Amino acid sequence: MSQKGFFILFEGPDRSGKTTQVNMLSGFLKENGFKVIVTREPGGTEVSEKIRDLLLDPKNKISPLCELFLYEASRAQHVFEKIKPALDEGHIVICDRFTIATEAYQGYGRNIDLKTVRLLNDIATMGLKPDLVIGFDISDEEYKKRKRNEVDRIEMESDKFRERVNSAYSHIFREMKNVFLVDASKSVEDIHEKIKKEVLKRINGF
Amino acid sequence: MSQKGFFILFEGPDRSGKTTQVNMLSGFLKENGFKVIVTREPGGTEVSEKIRDLLLDPKNKISPLCELFLYEASRAQHVFEKIKPALDEGHIVICDRFTIATEAYQGYGRNIDLKTVRLLNDIATMGLKPDLVIGFDISDEEYKKRKRNEVDRIEMESDKFRERVNSAYSHIFREMKNVFLVDASKSVEDIHEKIKKEVLKRINGF
Repeated sequence: MSQKGFFILFEGPDRSGKTTQVNMLSGFLKENGFKVIVTREPGGTEVSEKIRDLLLDPKNKISPLCELFLYEASRAQHVFEKIKPALDEGHIVICDRFTIATEAYQGYGRNIDLKTVRLLNDIATMGLKPDLVIGFDISDEEYKKRKRNEVDRIEMESDKFRERVNSAYSHIFREMKNVFLVDASKSVEDIHEKIKKEVLKRINGF
Repeated sequence: MSQKGFFILFEGPDRSGKTTQVNMLSGFLKENGFKVIVTREPGGTEVSEKIRDLLLDPKNKISPLCELFLYEASRAQHVFEKIKPALDEGHIVICDRFTIATEAYQGYGRNIDLKTVRLLNDIATMGLKPDLVIGFDISDEEYKKRKRNEVDRIEMESDKFRERVNSAYSHIFREMKNVFLVDASKSVEDIHEKIKKEVLKRINGF
């Protein structure tokens, strides 16, 4: 751990069940007396949520580079105002999406040079890294079963875009050392149990 | 000229009379049959103007890095959607503030590493440079005479911040090769005549 707290990141494609698991884990940790902050990207602070609204509104015409900078703007404020201070105060911070999403969506999805994406990620986070990444894998078949009625500007993208993003996640997770992989096709309870166990092991002595 | 059009940039501190001169020059050029696009930063496109609103609203709490990324997001969209296409079509583009403002305000004003500011400027502009920079110099005395009633989030900053920014402009202009310097204390008509002459000389044969 690089600071007094512990930074847990949930990453994975849309519809992989991340947010449900974020809520279950935070509930469990709070019941067990841990100080927990739950947050998400894009968003997490007042101005970052306003940037989120810009990013996800289907009416907005946004170029790939503008989109990348908006994600990084939201992130810079989020790290500065919320994540870093909470970690410094000894909280467990659980974040629903962060830098890996930007590699998958803006790097692989929008075809922006990965070196640029990683450089901007490093600037926006001021070098802050998660202590544990929980990565969700979802098959194309499973994804299609989980249709949604309302979609935002990013979810409106073509199937090809979404396939690029989803396979990028698998690829990125497999290249990382610090990731706990979850099979999104398993039951919600199953996944929760596995995550609980891994987190307790990792924050042991926290 | 790097493209079919001609890109004129007006840069300088607040209250230096840039915007008045932008309008006078564009009026003159249009009367003389040139195809002119007038634009400004932050802003210039629909989404960039929404980002401008975020940036200038005094109610918003924005960290220096978040602010920098928001300016670059606005710029990336502006270059992609408006400036580059207009230049490619052979227009004279007159822009009220651009990358130099970001060096002065976010670099010198907010103390963000200049290398970072320039790197992000280069990414957002995709390397596009102005063909002519018209730089406004304004003394502290003159600045204080030109008080305004309503100020935005940036103008609300301390005197020290503003002094850092204003002297940064002088410093940056003096290090540049491609700048036509204007003394903001001269009369509006005087300044307009000088700018007119310089622009006509530079776009000669355009």
